[in-house]
Amino acid sequence: MAQKPSIPKGTRDFSPSEVYKRNYIFDVVKKHFQTFGFQPIETPSFENSDTLMGKYGDEGDRLIFKIIDSGNIYEKKLSEDVENAISIFVALTYIFRDVTTAILEDIDRYNLEFATREELYEIIKGKNLLKHYDNKLEEWGHFLIDDYKYRIAFTDKLNAYREVFLSNCVEFIYGRGIDFKQVRDKSDLSEHYFKWADRHVVKQFTTDIFGKIEGEIPNINKLTSDLLVKKISEKALRYDLTVPFARYVVMHQNEIDFPFKRYQIQPVWRADRPQKGRFREFYQCDADVVGANSLLQEVELIQLYDAVFTDLGLKGTTIKLNNRKILSGIAEVIGAKHLLVAFTVALDKLDKIGEEGVKKEMLEKGISEQAIQKATPLFSLSGSNSEQLLQLKELLKDSEEGSKGVQELDYIISSIEELGLQSANLSIDVTLARGLNYYTGAIFEVSAPDGVNMGSIGGGGRYDDLTGVFGLKDMSGVGISFGLDRIYIVLEELGLFPSAIDQSLDVLCVNFGDREALFALKLVRELRKSGIKADVYPSSVKMQKQMKYANNRKVPFVILIGEQELESNSFVVKNMKEGSQGTYSLDKVEEFINSF
Amino acid sequence: MAQKPSIPKGTRDFSPSEVYKRNYIFDVVKKHFQTFGFQPIETPSFENSDTLMGKYGDEGDRLIFKIIDSGNIYEKKLSEDVENAISIFVALTYIFRDVTTAILEDIDRYNLEFATREELYEIIKGKNLLKHYDNKLEEWGHFLIDDYKYRIAFTDKLNAYREVFLSNCVEFIYGRGIDFKQVRDKSDLSEHYFKWADRHVVKQFTTDIFGKIEGEIPNINKLTSDLLVKKISEKALRYDLTVPFARYVVMHQNEIDFPFKRYQIQPVWRADRPQKGRFREFYQCDADVVGANSLLQEVELIQLYDAVFTDLGLKGTTIKLNNRKILSGIAEVIGAKHLLVAFTVALDKLDKIGEEGVKKEMLEKGISEQAIQKATPLFSLSGSNSEQLLQLKELLKDSEEGSKGVQELDYIISSIEELGLQSANLSIDVTLARGLNYYTGAIFEVSAPDGVNMGSIGGGGRYDDLTGVFGLKDMSGVGISFGLDRIYIVLEELGLFPSAIDQSLDVLCVNFGDREALFALKLVRELRKSGIKADVYPSSVKMQKQMKYANNRKVPFVILIGEQELESNSFVVKNMKEGSQGTYSLDKVEEFINSF
Repeated sequence: MAQKPSIPKGTRDFSPSEVYKRNYIFDVVKKHFQTFGFQPIETPSFENSDTLMGKYGDEGDRLIFKIIDSGNIYEKKLSEDVENAISIFVALTYIFRDVTTAILEDIDRYNLEFATREELYEIIKGKNLLKHYDNKLEEWGHFLIDDYKYRIAFTDKLNAYREVFLSNCVEFIYGRGIDFKQVRDKSDLSEHYFKWADRHVVKQFTTDIFGKIEGEIPNINKLTSDLLVKKISEKALRYDLTVPFARYVVMHQNEIDFPFKRYQIQPVWRADRPQKGRFREFYQCDADVVGANSLLQEVELIQLYDAVFTDLGLKGTTIKLNNRKILSGIAEVIGAKHLLVAFTVALDKLDKIGEEGVKKEMLEKGISEQAIQKATPLFSLSGSNSEQLLQLKELLKDSEEGSKGVQELDYIISSIEELGLQSANLSIDVTLARGLNYYTGAIFEVSAPDGVNMGSIGGGGRYDDLTGVFGLKDMSGVGISFGLDRIYIVLEELGLFPSAIDQSLDVLCVNFGDREALFALKLVRELRKSGIKADVYPSSVKMQKQMKYANNRKVPFVILIGEQELESNSFVVKNMKEGSQGTYSLDKVEEFINSF
Repeated sequence: MAQKPSIPKGTRDFSPSEVYKRNYIFDVVKKHFQTFGFQPIETPSFENSDTLMGKYGDEGDRLIFKIIDSGNIYEKKLSEDVENAISIFVALTYIFRDVTTAILEDIDRYNLEFATREELYEIIKGKNLLKHYDNKLEEWGHFLIDDYKYRIAFTDKLNAYREVFLSNCVEFIYGRGIDFKQVRDKSDLSEHYFKWADRHVVKQFTTDIFGKIEGEIPNINKLTSDLLVKKISEKALRYDLTVPFARYVVMHQNEIDFPFKRYQIQPVWRADRPQKGRFREFYQCDADVVGANSLLQEVELIQLYDAVFTDLGLKGTTIKLNNRKILSGIAEVIGAKHLLVAFTVALDKLDKIGEEGVKKEMLEKGISEQAIQKATPLFSLSGSNSEQLLQLKELLKDSEEGSKGVQELDYIISSIEELGLQSANLSIDVTLARGLNYYTGAIFEVSAPDGVNMGSIGGGGRYDDLTGVFGLKDMSGVGISFGLDRIYIVLEELGLFPSAIDQSLDVLCVNFGDREALFALKLVRELRKSGIKADVYPSSVKMQKQMKYANNRKVPFVILIGEQELESNSFVVKNMKEGSQGTYSLDKVEEFINSF
């Protein structure tokens, strides 16, 4: 039965005219990457999960596409570890519920009294109520290991866990303030218990079995899911180009001549919720310099942005410039250094929520009224770059780090003033943060020319320790990125793509039959050798159909070779735009070629 | 702690010089694709699993990389269906073992006699031995549904399965010839039973629960694995370019002007065991025409191979040509039509195992001595293409299909003779099969020039029903593919890459300090505008270090701008190859530019 085909949400097919336009952008960008001395590398589409996981924060980890290991994952993996884990989690939870219930019943039955955790603990120990635990353990251990052939020493594990259980049990009964005399309805208790056990018990137990678990106490389902994914997947799709680049630099450090200027244009994949303009597969287009501390790089990268956007005809872009040290300095001088992230996240929203909104958010995030007061000059920075620099210098005069930032900004701006830009504007923007925790020096962002409703079309910055996570210390990196999809939309909107960009065929020969077609092929062969895109219609169907095809593909020249032309060794060229017509001899095909 | 980075086996990093060389091949291929009127498309890296699965045979399905759905797979998927499935499989197997054991014990205890399946069946029914089943069912049903909160109507399912169980039980006891009086050791019986139950019982049960399962009776682990993968993965990485192309054509049929000539150069992924020259990620490079039945396409594709390989400097390739109809015709005239696949698979090995080897394999595969005798002329086809055509014509004169094949071959070969080839040879090869079940007409394969030890560097053919599986009937396709990795190796081996291909920097300015560097940047800006790859060394480190960098990157021109040059507004150019040196004025930078 035929399937009605579709593609996964968040992905796209690119039809010829889209490919031409995308390649046009890539080619322009690449040309400038190369004249600026950058060299291309390519990395694999999937990396070892270890390489990617933990590099992009929790949210990033969640958005990384994982690939299932090949082969029979159940046989190889699940039946050993994960199925054990799942079963043990379930067993554990039931044991806890049953045992706790039995203990509660005993306390009830014997009218045992306790006032503190310690008293309850002693009661349980003294009355040997943990026999319930041992009984259950035997029952489940037998069930799981003998009958289910689970291989790990389940009973040993749970035996060692007896003491831990006791304190958990006490904590549960006492901590929840359960009036055990009222508890009759097991199922009600179960529900309480399940929720509680999820958070308090499972973590410790799984830590025993599976090693250290970092961060938040996991939910049992989430934990099982993560364990499962870890067990059945050791590869993941590239999430950005920066981490694979860092990995590449470390792996190839002995072959690389530092400073290394590399560019990379490849797709990345993110399991984000797809929406307008946000895709699960999209290209990134990065140029980075690694192993060079000099601010000359920042100057060069601004020149590079200018060169590319000018060449694309996209004049009047604004390259916004900031420096992490300035943000740190401001937080320092206003006395909110410990709230740097909250401060910059709020400041970053100035465009959207205005001065009052920003101040309100800062207040909510715990930044004092006084500190906000001190930061107020930021909201009214004005004038030329030099004027803003002066104001910043004054504002940050008491911060060493802040002053360093001003100095760096100053160097970059004055160098660019000296060199000039072709069509871009360079502008200080102290509200610019862009993944603050990542960048350590310059921060860039490019916005489209005024009047175009579009977010940033490029961005980047300097990060002082690019490769440290992979073991190569003190490698500073600085780079920029071009937002292909957005640039595409802007060029389309402004009509900036070259007009003949999707001219995929220059010449079509009408097919009047086998003999004529073969003759036409000879002509076409010569045209193609001269780089002309030429073709013979594949079958001798009605002329009308062939002309329709020529029109649809916007072919500028249609060639007619009928019986008469065969005899006279010539061909007729019909100029589809002008409607004119001319005859050429096949011996003098260059005449036609030269007319291109 | 720093990780020691690595990449997944079967994948590769491409360093700059490799990227240049690969792009060189891509660019040449692309250029000719375009002059031949092909248009580029791109499809997503991952497709819906449904689009890919079942299109490449069982082996292909196994080699497709599956992507894990995003989100908490345990919560969303496992806890509902798959965990049920796993538990039910396990429960089912145990129930069967326990019940069968109990029945065997009863038969033993009551000394019941039976000689046929029917008698055993009656005994079990008559003595109400199925009460064991009902008991077990109650026990497990309670355990699974009440305690484990499984939601599906497990008991109902197993009740409905009572009759099926009975006949399975009879089959097990009778069919295995178990001397039930001897069976005392349960564990021995269990082992027998497990193996048996896997194959005979699980299929039927899972069919009930999960719908129709096609093909081989699955192993319980394999089945669980497949179900699990199906539940947690709905996307898979592209395995080739042909299926996504077919999917594309069907989805975009209303926008496409047929006949549609498309090319596509994108990576594909296969979970194959990596080995020398076989990767898990590699590029495919395809040109196909869809919607054109005319043999002109085959002629064109041969011309295209010739144009590309000639342009790459790879002269003397051999384009081998066959036709599926000829293979069918031969199988028909020798009376082995039903053994077509076995016949062609054996014939395909003529190169490797020789005439005797091929005959031996044919015999083993059930092709008669007489048929093989009739096919003998195939082994001694000789002479020019025209001479071979004559011999084939005679051999196939009684087969309509075979004669059609000869006629097609004849047309293609005579057209190519008329048009000529620039550097390739075209040669009939009736042993060529290449995924026979796929192609329906022409079959192509290109081998490297004599003396190069390399398998095929390209291949293709015609397939009459490209898009039928996606619901668009009667769409003939014909296409060819270029083997990038192999072409790369051949060009490398023969020294055919252009010599300056990895010249990534034309000019390097030595950095003598901030002022000098800024001056150099002005010069570099002008050079770059002219397309010259130019750079300023990023920091004013020792001259020696900068010159070493220039040498490593094989920079042909090093520019020196010291204090003196700053003053005189000039720059010194050092020709690194010739060792010569010259001074230019910055005002006359064109003089230097023109020297390139």
